[in-house]
Amino acid sequence: MAKHVYSFGDGRAEGSASERDLLGGKGANLAEMCNLGLPVPPGFTITAEVCRAYYANAKSYPEGLKVEATDALRRLEAQVGASFGDAGRPLLVSVRSGARASMPGMMETVLNLGLNDETVEGLARQSKDARFAFDSYRRFIQMYGDVVLGVEHHEFEEALARYKETRGLRWDTELTEDDWREIVSLYRDLVEERLGRPFPQDVDEQLWGAIGAVFDSWMNRRAITYRQLHGMPDSSGTAVSVQAMVFGNMGDGCATGVAFTRNPSTGEKLPFGEYLLNAQGEDVVAGIRTPHPLTRHETAQGSELVSFEEAMPEIYGELVKVFELLESHYRDMQDIEFTVQCGKLWMLQTRVGKRTVQAALKIAVAMVAEGVIGREEAVRRIDPDRLEQLLHPGLDPSAPREVIARGLPASPGAATGAVVFSSDDARERAARGDAVILVRTETSPEDIHGMHAARGILTSRGGMTSHAAVVARGMGRACVSGASAVRIDHEARLFTAGNDQVLEGEVITIDGSTGEVMRGEVPMVVPELSGDFRVLMGWADSFRTLIVRANAETPPDAETALSFGAEGIGLCRTEHMFFEENRIVAIREMILAEDEPGRCRALDKLLPMQRADFVELFRIMAGHPVTIRLLDPPLHEFLPKLDDEIADFASDTGIDPRRLRLRIAQLQEVNPMLGHRGCRLGISYPEIYEMQVRAVFEAAIDVGAELDQTVVPEIMIPLVASRNEFDLMKALVERVADRVAQDNSAELHYLVGTMIELPRAALCAHSIAEAAEFFSFGTNDLTQTTFGISRDDATSFLDTYTRRRIFEADPFVSLDQEGVGRLMRLAVEEGRAARPDLHLGICGEHGGDPASIRFCQGLKLDYVSCSPYRVPIARLAAAQAALEEAE
Amino acid sequence: MAKHVYSFGDGRAEGSASERDLLGGKGANLAEMCNLGLPVPPGFTITAEVCRAYYANAKSYPEGLKVEATDALRRLEAQVGASFGDAGRPLLVSVRSGARASMPGMMETVLNLGLNDETVEGLARQSKDARFAFDSYRRFIQMYGDVVLGVEHHEFEEALARYKETRGLRWDTELTEDDWREIVSLYRDLVEERLGRPFPQDVDEQLWGAIGAVFDSWMNRRAITYRQLHGMPDSSGTAVSVQAMVFGNMGDGCATGVAFTRNPSTGEKLPFGEYLLNAQGEDVVAGIRTPHPLTRHETAQGSELVSFEEAMPEIYGELVKVFELLESHYRDMQDIEFTVQCGKLWMLQTRVGKRTVQAALKIAVAMVAEGVIGREEAVRRIDPDRLEQLLHPGLDPSAPREVIARGLPASPGAATGAVVFSSDDARERAARGDAVILVRTETSPEDIHGMHAARGILTSRGGMTSHAAVVARGMGRACVSGASAVRIDHEARLFTAGNDQVLEGEVITIDGSTGEVMRGEVPMVVPELSGDFRVLMGWADSFRTLIVRANAETPPDAETALSFGAEGIGLCRTEHMFFEENRIVAIREMILAEDEPGRCRALDKLLPMQRADFVELFRIMAGHPVTIRLLDPPLHEFLPKLDDEIADFASDTGIDPRRLRLRIAQLQEVNPMLGHRGCRLGISYPEIYEMQVRAVFEAAIDVGAELDQTVVPEIMIPLVASRNEFDLMKALVERVADRVAQDNSAELHYLVGTMIELPRAALCAHSIAEAAEFFSFGTNDLTQTTFGISRDDATSFLDTYTRRRIFEADPFVSLDQEGVGRLMRLAVEEGRAARPDLHLGICGEHGGDPASIRFCQGLKLDYVSCSPYRVPIARLAAAQAALEEAE
Repeated sequence: MAKHVYSFGDGRAEGSASERDLLGGKGANLAEMCNLGLPVPPGFTITAEVCRAYYANAKSYPEGLKVEATDALRRLEAQVGASFGDAGRPLLVSVRSGARASMPGMMETVLNLGLNDETVEGLARQSKDARFAFDSYRRFIQMYGDVVLGVEHHEFEEALARYKETRGLRWDTELTEDDWREIVSLYRDLVEERLGRPFPQDVDEQLWGAIGAVFDSWMNRRAITYRQLHGMPDSSGTAVSVQAMVFGNMGDGCATGVAFTRNPSTGEKLPFGEYLLNAQGEDVVAGIRTPHPLTRHETAQGSELVSFEEAMPEIYGELVKVFELLESHYRDMQDIEFTVQCGKLWMLQTRVGKRTVQAALKIAVAMVAEGVIGREEAVRRIDPDRLEQLLHPGLDPSAPREVIARGLPASPGAATGAVVFSSDDARERAARGDAVILVRTETSPEDIHGMHAARGILTSRGGMTSHAAVVARGMGRACVSGASAVRIDHEARLFTAGNDQVLEGEVITIDGSTGEVMRGEVPMVVPELSGDFRVLMGWADSFRTLIVRANAETPPDAETALSFGAEGIGLCRTEHMFFEENRIVAIREMILAEDEPGRCRALDKLLPMQRADFVELFRIMAGHPVTIRLLDPPLHEFLPKLDDEIADFASDTGIDPRRLRLRIAQLQEVNPMLGHRGCRLGISYPEIYEMQVRAVFEAAIDVGAELDQTVVPEIMIPLVASRNEFDLMKALVERVADRVAQDNSAELHYLVGTMIELPRAALCAHSIAEAAEFFSFGTNDLTQTTFGISRDDATSFLDTYTRRRIFEADPFVSLDQEGVGRLMRLAVEEGRAARPDLHLGICGEHGGDPASIRFCQGLKLDYVSCSPYRVPIARLAAAQAALEEAE
Repeated sequence: MAKHVYSFGDGRAEGSASERDLLGGKGANLAEMCNLGLPVPPGFTITAEVCRAYYANAKSYPEGLKVEATDALRRLEAQVGASFGDAGRPLLVSVRSGARASMPGMMETVLNLGLNDETVEGLARQSKDARFAFDSYRRFIQMYGDVVLGVEHHEFEEALARYKETRGLRWDTELTEDDWREIVSLYRDLVEERLGRPFPQDVDEQLWGAIGAVFDSWMNRRAITYRQLHGMPDSSGTAVSVQAMVFGNMGDGCATGVAFTRNPSTGEKLPFGEYLLNAQGEDVVAGIRTPHPLTRHETAQGSELVSFEEAMPEIYGELVKVFELLESHYRDMQDIEFTVQCGKLWMLQTRVGKRTVQAALKIAVAMVAEGVIGREEAVRRIDPDRLEQLLHPGLDPSAPREVIARGLPASPGAATGAVVFSSDDARERAARGDAVILVRTETSPEDIHGMHAARGILTSRGGMTSHAAVVARGMGRACVSGASAVRIDHEARLFTAGNDQVLEGEVITIDGSTGEVMRGEVPMVVPELSGDFRVLMGWADSFRTLIVRANAETPPDAETALSFGAEGIGLCRTEHMFFEENRIVAIREMILAEDEPGRCRALDKLLPMQRADFVELFRIMAGHPVTIRLLDPPLHEFLPKLDDEIADFASDTGIDPRRLRLRIAQLQEVNPMLGHRGCRLGISYPEIYEMQVRAVFEAAIDVGAELDQTVVPEIMIPLVASRNEFDLMKALVERVADRVAQDNSAELHYLVGTMIELPRAALCAHSIAEAAEFFSFGTNDLTQTTFGISRDDATSFLDTYTRRRIFEADPFVSLDQEGVGRLMRLAVEEGRAARPDLHLGICGEHGGDPASIRFCQGLKLDYVSCSPYRVPIARLAAAQAALEEAE
């Protein structure tokens, strides 16, 4: 028969920290602290296994549990020298939940359990403080009443308030022993009135009521939601720890506090915390009284608050020793709770302390220096996703804000600016030096200039991987997408959000890290990249085996990518180069040309511009590899859409507006994602790709001569579904290469490869790899086609899907390993079988997602490529993946 | 060393019919006829291997060829008793191409070769007919000049015309020997003038010139195009046959003709053919003279034409014996060419005769009765795709027509009617008894009623699997889709096609079997389903192992399907039931409802209608299985689109038009194919699916009681991408089933399965099959997502793709086995591994395509489901696939 109850106390325990699954985080840690010899109030833990059995068997307990628990209770009584329910020396206990992973505040806790009308008198006698005893009793009734009996907290609060009002009392501290006796009586009446039976006086009944309430709270709505949000399974269950009460509020010489072994904000190696004299733990947390600082060091200039270090110097000394012991044992910064009961220190809890990313970096680097952990461990300890906070300005967390709408946190960082509703307005106002926020229903490649010009982008439609989100992340612009409450009224030049109304030109602030949209300006903080960051990233690079490249095409993006440590460009989207003012006209001429000669004339104008783009890019990247994807989006994306845009363009260029409209209508597509784009364009209009490839090769020759270093462009064919398409496009590239080489009497070195972004390409990888020199997984489109989900349209249901956990995660954020990943694995295996030196990478958004990077490491890809601002994250995640694999 | 030249003649040959690859169809057949002892003019064949070598070696002949050919020529001279180039007894030969498969008219032929200024006199002497000799010579100069020397045909024709004009002559028959001598001289001058050298007099030069021209013609543009259209490889090459000339125009006792051993139109077992006395073969084919019928039987009532049977009764008797010999040897109807030279019959060619599908059926069934072939062979001989001709009315092939535009042959059959531009107009005019053709840019589910009302549908956009095409095929309506020249001008109420203009109400005719659009009415022929058809289909059914179901939802469609032999419904698209006048209003109310209660109120109205639909369907299908797919298309498909439709709907229903527009805008999608549809709707709005499932189950109970037979509905969940989606929807179905069973105190039997129409579903088949009782491959959407091609937008490039053979076939017509097929195979294998009795079918358009059916047979699917009009095709194709597999 399995053991259901594990005792701890008096410097030893039946469990240890390794048994989190069984004892929960709290129970395991209490056991561990006991084993360390720390002063922990004794107690016992009912295992999470009992919880699982409880739910599996219609909420009934496994056989033998009660006997085991009673035995443990008897041992506890012996250790404490008190008896449960004994009026002379009553044992009081706390009953707490403890899941494997912390779920702060989600489940129930009952304190002071064991008090009843008789034992309260015993407590009064024993503590020589009847006021304390009755205050404790009323706290117990209130908590137990709320948690176990279902009498709501506020009813007790109201009863207390009425009592104080009738007596003309304002503060709890004004209440005397008699007042508390009276209130206990009022509380018991309240319970009896609500329940039709008296407040339970039997302490065993109290105990099992509380245990049951904790188990029940595992499946309360907020706990379920919390687990969903944090990706935790419902099946693991919670343990219940029953522990002897210690009191920080038993008069002088008593105190309670919380502390970190190092500063959780800065990471500085100094204890940090708060305490209250003569108080219970909840008082510190609840903020009813202002807690005092733990150390003298922390005491604010001019503050009158006496630190714990000063108030209880001896115990502080003891505490510091405990800190050292805990850090050396746990090898990490700890977050602890302690109580001093009549001059004796008790440790109630210890756990790894949460910290800012800045602190995490400092602590990790410092602990390596201290010899506590190794570099591998330091690298492992930083959550790569949190690095993002370091790279973008954020709102001052203490600043007040008026949130008027919420959307998705699509691109981190915060931005403040005047509202504009068109990209042209954005550019115009930005050119005048204004900070602007571009507000659109959704964005398209036509908006690139406006997005560049804006500080931030707000859209009312689109998900985390909508055009706005992807481009904004690439540019490092803050972006809130899919803020569905935002309705733009172009005519009235304003947007509404619920009852709020914001006029064009009014200032708003968006926080791309939280999805909040706020009225007016909110102060910002711009964190700096610390030396610790550089040290840790250096270590990460030394462990990493995956190369990290960036998705970039503009010079600023390429420079940012390099500064963040990118080792090349994995995806240069040539179409982004086409949206600059002077190019879009030529592009449109090309699209509107009646025939091939007309298209060629327009392309001749584009050639020098495109060549100049590549010259600049190759110069910046100075020998680092650059993968250039040929034109990908359908042509209609380049044409004007709105009526007045069409009219303007027609009058600017002298094109017959009717012909323009006709061509726009002809090019219109029902499902542009699945339309005439990618290499399908290269096959229909080879002259477009010929121009692009010529520009690349001519630039490579120019920059190669300039740098005296061969530039080896990697030409990437988009949207390949079949070997034949690739062969045709490869032949085109080779034809142009031969011509350029001949024209320039130069030798050209280059690679030709393909995106793998359609299921069919993955399924035909063997055949394609016979011809292609590299594969780059375009996991955005591959996810769209594998799932049959348009990311532009997914917001209407994807939210429900992730909330209800139909999908484990948003597949556009974290790679779907079961479906998309299976296609990738197949393509990797069969591609490598056909061509052992096939170069393999990923250039979808997933290239910057840690879980996806881990998967890529498993596939043994050569590189990941992500937006410039995610390069450090990818470097760190890749290092962690390599370390994990090495294990 | 390989043998390059194969001789034949005098009742034996070096080759046989089995050597088509080497000798070409013609050479192999000539050899075979010789071996059969038929009177074949002797000759020799230069192998196709020589042609392959010719192209592999820069158009040079393999060593030894000329020596071998000269040897063969000497043997030929000996057999004929004439000498090549000899003025006394000149040997004349024909030089013809012969590829493995017939390519009629694509390559070059030269007749009468061996004539020059000297031999022509010998021929005149020998034939005692100088006029004939010089006519033959001028024909030779003209043909050789055109084919070998590049002097165009029309130049000779013009010279002849000028000659006749100056002499005041009208008919060739009026020309005398001297005229032809003169013309020969004119022709020779013409050649010399154009070429700067005289017409070749050396007969060996003539021979090798002609052989080279035939080889060259293998790669002429029209031959390449023909091979592309017929899926033939360029690499096989052509053989060249050199054969002694026989003359049907050497005076009395001479004739030439073509004949079929049975009637190729009706299949009747009577020889059928045409001949001309004193003529060359080309005269029969060219239609310069009206040929006479072969048999007395064929002679039209009151015709003065004398049949061959009457004109040359002895030789006719000989010919009939040849026919019998050929049919018993080749075991099929033959198409032969013969010539009678001075009372002697010569067989020039025999091949399997082309025939109408009606004839094919009659001949196959008759030959089984005659004991010539077995039933398996009879079933194999019918091309399933051609059955379609039997099922739809077609244009009278002899009727004149004015073609104004061409599109894709999207749904077979022809239709004539007045042009309408909206579905409402179509219904209105059809209700008044008019035949109408619905002309739209493209159609959507909103047009169902108009398409039903119309005789035919013409669209200017969309491919073979566009909405219009798919629905039209399902309904058996003629459809021409993607006729891109057609431009609709709604304002002017007309459409243009190039310079043509067709007003609303004008009559046009469309031919859905050819893609032609014609002005006015063109007479039709409606073939009847013959007894032979039923006999042969019965045999097919006896061999078939795949079950054939139909995609149908309306009562007429279900009845058509049953009458064509469908064994159940494989796909009932419930949304098609929603477009009837009275339903669409309730559907729209449901979509526009603000909340779930509002939706439920609208759904309550729909429930009885939907239940009535299923009652009718179950009644018609009387125990045959019916697979019902729950609502699939995105909701916006049900809302009005055009401004006046919106206004009408708003005023009809009293809904605020602004709110209506807002909701329409909200529901709009960038890529509706990848949007909020399928089970995503069922998850967002479970009440919709609940209503549908309730209607199905209530109908099943009603009809089950009525028929005293359990109705077992198969509920199919669309667009499943993950196991979780399926589980949720299955739970919904079970929940409703339990409730309906309880409410009706009935027991319900049903299956719940899923479409496999997304790559991810195929990739997760193992997991899904654990929960799903059947899979139905939705290969339309699976093809769209696997290729990343929207069938609505594919016309702009897919045509180029199939024309340039980038894709072997249109993947929406014939299943892509490499990509889509691989996913299907994976899903079948892994699905069956999880659930050995998993029921597997296909319900995409491919379910009616013979090549795809063969693939499904290989996968061991349980059934294929296709549009009602393709059911017979599927039955036959499935039988052929089963026979092939059994081999």
